[in-house]
Amino acid sequence: MDQADTVEQGLSRTRKRERGGGRDGRRAGQGTAPPHRAAPYIIRNIPTYDVMGEENLLKIEATADRILAEVGIEFRDDDVALSHWKAAGANVDGLLVRFEPGMLREILKSAPASFTQHARNPANSVEIGGKSVVFAPAYGSPFVMDQDTGRRYGTIEDFRNFIKLAQSSPWLHHSGGTICEPVDVPVNKRHLDMVYAHLKYSDRCFMGSVTAENRAKESIEMARIVFGRDFVDQNCVILGNVNVNSPLVWDGTMTNALRAYARANQAAIIVPFILGGAMGPVTSAGAIAQALAETMAGCALTQLERKGAPVIFGNFLSSMSLRSGSPTFGTPEPAVGSMVIGQLARRLNLPLRCAGNFSNSKLPDAQAMNEGTMSMLSAVHSGANFILHSAGFLDGLLSMSYEKFVMDADFCGALHSYLAGVVVDDNSLALDAFREVGVGKHFLGCAHTMENYQTVFWDSQIADNEPYEKWEAAGRTDAATRANARWKQTLADYQAPAMDEATDEALIEYVERTKAAQTDAWY
Amino acid sequence: MDQADTVEQGLSRTRKRERGGGRDGRRAGQGTAPPHRAAPYIIRNIPTYDVMGEENLLKIEATADRILAEVGIEFRDDDVALSHWKAAGANVDGLLVRFEPGMLREILKSAPASFTQHARNPANSVEIGGKSVVFAPAYGSPFVMDQDTGRRYGTIEDFRNFIKLAQSSPWLHHSGGTICEPVDVPVNKRHLDMVYAHLKYSDRCFMGSVTAENRAKESIEMARIVFGRDFVDQNCVILGNVNVNSPLVWDGTMTNALRAYARANQAAIIVPFILGGAMGPVTSAGAIAQALAETMAGCALTQLERKGAPVIFGNFLSSMSLRSGSPTFGTPEPAVGSMVIGQLARRLNLPLRCAGNFSNSKLPDAQAMNEGTMSMLSAVHSGANFILHSAGFLDGLLSMSYEKFVMDADFCGALHSYLAGVVVDDNSLALDAFREVGVGKHFLGCAHTMENYQTVFWDSQIADNEPYEKWEAAGRTDAATRANARWKQTLADYQAPAMDEATDEALIEYVERTKAAQTDAWY
Repeated sequence: MDQADTVEQGLSRTRKRERGGGRDGRRAGQGTAPPHRAAPYIIRNIPTYDVMGEENLLKIEATADRILAEVGIEFRDDDVALSHWKAAGANVDGLLVRFEPGMLREILKSAPASFTQHARNPANSVEIGGKSVVFAPAYGSPFVMDQDTGRRYGTIEDFRNFIKLAQSSPWLHHSGGTICEPVDVPVNKRHLDMVYAHLKYSDRCFMGSVTAENRAKESIEMARIVFGRDFVDQNCVILGNVNVNSPLVWDGTMTNALRAYARANQAAIIVPFILGGAMGPVTSAGAIAQALAETMAGCALTQLERKGAPVIFGNFLSSMSLRSGSPTFGTPEPAVGSMVIGQLARRLNLPLRCAGNFSNSKLPDAQAMNEGTMSMLSAVHSGANFILHSAGFLDGLLSMSYEKFVMDADFCGALHSYLAGVVVDDNSLALDAFREVGVGKHFLGCAHTMENYQTVFWDSQIADNEPYEKWEAAGRTDAATRANARWKQTLADYQAPAMDEATDEALIEYVERTKAAQTDAWY
Repeated sequence: MDQADTVEQGLSRTRKRERGGGRDGRRAGQGTAPPHRAAPYIIRNIPTYDVMGEENLLKIEATADRILAEVGIEFRDDDVALSHWKAAGANVDGLLVRFEPGMLREILKSAPASFTQHARNPANSVEIGGKSVVFAPAYGSPFVMDQDTGRRYGTIEDFRNFIKLAQSSPWLHHSGGTICEPVDVPVNKRHLDMVYAHLKYSDRCFMGSVTAENRAKESIEMARIVFGRDFVDQNCVILGNVNVNSPLVWDGTMTNALRAYARANQAAIIVPFILGGAMGPVTSAGAIAQALAETMAGCALTQLERKGAPVIFGNFLSSMSLRSGSPTFGTPEPAVGSMVIGQLARRLNLPLRCAGNFSNSKLPDAQAMNEGTMSMLSAVHSGANFILHSAGFLDGLLSMSYEKFVMDADFCGALHSYLAGVVVDDNSLALDAFREVGVGKHFLGCAHTMENYQTVFWDSQIADNEPYEKWEAAGRTDAATRANARWKQTLADYQAPAMDEATDEALIEYVERTKAAQTDAWY
């Protein structure tokens, strides 16, 4: 029997099995491979990439300490935050708060190094901290785009679509938060529709609103309907992503929101938003020191609100185009800087959030994936435990792209293999295979290959790996065109996870009642 | 004075200076920014990414030793190689050579850990080894492609064009070798035209032929005409990239070529070509052990031919598509495996070659740059000193793409910034800037920004960083379309480096005489 035939038969059997039955098999032959659910999150098997030595890390930490002690941080419109700082012994002068070196580190010791975020389907709960890596969709763009219609404002339908795409991906772990802004819903009510959509169309973990204290509270209240009040008081079930108003200002809207999450024992993610040269120094070391100062202050405030509440150290570095003045993304300076921030977060023993797959491109083209891949790899190398913006972003964070979303989700799949590292055991070392095959012969049909080939290599659903002639005969598609077909097929195949009727009704009742109590606001 | 105005004026001054005079200034306003020559090579300022622990590295090394001792390597059609091995104490049984554990490591101690490859313009000489990183174009594809005409066989004109594009890039360091096959020149003569083209159209370092012993010798002979016989005997001026006939066979064509390079004190690059599941085991650990065994044997043979000759430890791992059976590139398994190979090469104290920017895509699209960026970052993280295939490859190594070439060269520029790491000093920590700006104000016009903004951020010539509206107004181009315009402009702007007439005439005379002595062979 020819060895190649053996492999061919093996492949044929695999395909048959993969397509054989159940929901996964229904689309046999349509190119949408079955989303066998991967692990609920990744446990990394390669170390973090620590690019900076001890001496320089100490200099950055010392600079952050001096920024905190000498320049200080302003806390606006939040008297409770100021009184927390006073009680903790900070130097409060009007709105300006200064911190003795070491004070914030001491407060941060009560924050957990790792915690579980519970999903309504327990199989989808994720660990955030340590060696875990959780991929979540992009967050916050006002626009959406697809290959058919170009760019337009996002709607609640788009928002639901992206939840469905995330839920359908075996490689994303989290439903995210404001995947796009549903601009067709009033600003003061859309959080209710967004949280409901996450709970209804996904059974994975999700994020709530932070744009006003009541919206944060209402997001948490909806989680309580699903998970129960007592459970929520003792367990994290919702995240809130709050931004520093860099440089060195914490706005009351954000601190009220972060305190609402902490008070409810839910995890706030504390994220500076520093475009080098605008909201921080143009040099990376200074921007990183600033980020460390701002993030430590925000994280510490959660501990003053509720000691032991989970909190995530967030990172968002960027750069600026000197020609257009625009922010740039996926560039080398934030990529290497983020790995330094990872080192600093680990020295604080806090879970880390990084930004993932960024680009300034307006199309899902070569620029998009060059920048996106650069920034996404930086995020996983930095040791980030929660990678927001893992899928979908284009247009300098202004647009969610349907095509880029499925490309990025596919790349998240590749990263599962990458972060597994090189397995070393008797089977993988394959000494018996060398003895079997000997010199100058091929391994295609040997026993070792037959036993392992189905599981060893990542199999992209977007990449074209056919020979040129076959690719040409199949219509010369580019990746964007294949991604376009794929997201449509995925939405057509989507089935909502079950939710018990009473819970659904209670959520709908809460949303309607809360909406009815407010007048629409559109800005 | 408004701060933003200050920045605007500063930017305007910069642009004027950049475009002001000389050759660099001629294309002002045409979007082809001046290629101010970067450093002749990179000295990395971030550590290598060591993903595997000591225990597993030892297991892989032990497996390589057992492959060498128990299975052995066949040396075909090269009696001199066999007699070298006998003299060195290996177990030679017919063509099969087996090696006691440790024997090859002992022989390899005479190889230099680092050496200089000299360019005909001394400013372009490169160091290969230690912390140096050298980017060279892709190598060996029979086809070329561009956006206008699609895929076609490569010609000597294409070959010259790619040399000109490489020479014009401030971010590539090396002219490479068989950038594409010039299929319009007879197989047995094209090496003469290729080496002449490298010497004539570039003044950077280059590679010679390895496809037959006489072609290797003639390549070296042409280098002697330019550099002088004595200089070449004492210094490396040409590289030869030789492939193992994996698994575990060294073909006489390759060993004769590698011995020709070593005998002339020129550097052979020793590269296994392992597609997991075909020329090696389907599991990475076994493929890496095999690569180590094959590469050590090839490197050691250079030392038996001439003790102390420079030699480069080469790496080429790949994977296979289980659906098409095609080799795949830019996938996660080789990316993480290459970093392990980097660790193994450093433990041998040898310079490392990795493959760079790979893709299976047939277009310079999102797939191309996702895969390319993944593999290129792996190469730089692995600690590779010489990165072949840094620019141009598409179509699973079968095609050189003009558009991808300039995209990749641009990404090589980004990697200059990335490998510089985060600079930490008083200026970059920017404490004075924090004191000047204070809380809640922007850094756009502060003294620190004005002093640093021109140099801190990588400025891509391919990426579009304009706002959406400006991008739309400018014609909604994708990266491939911008790259298309860029390579044409670069070729139009190209000026050959000076070469003295006598040398040029001597080269031409040698090429003509050598060609005349042989009948054309087309296969």
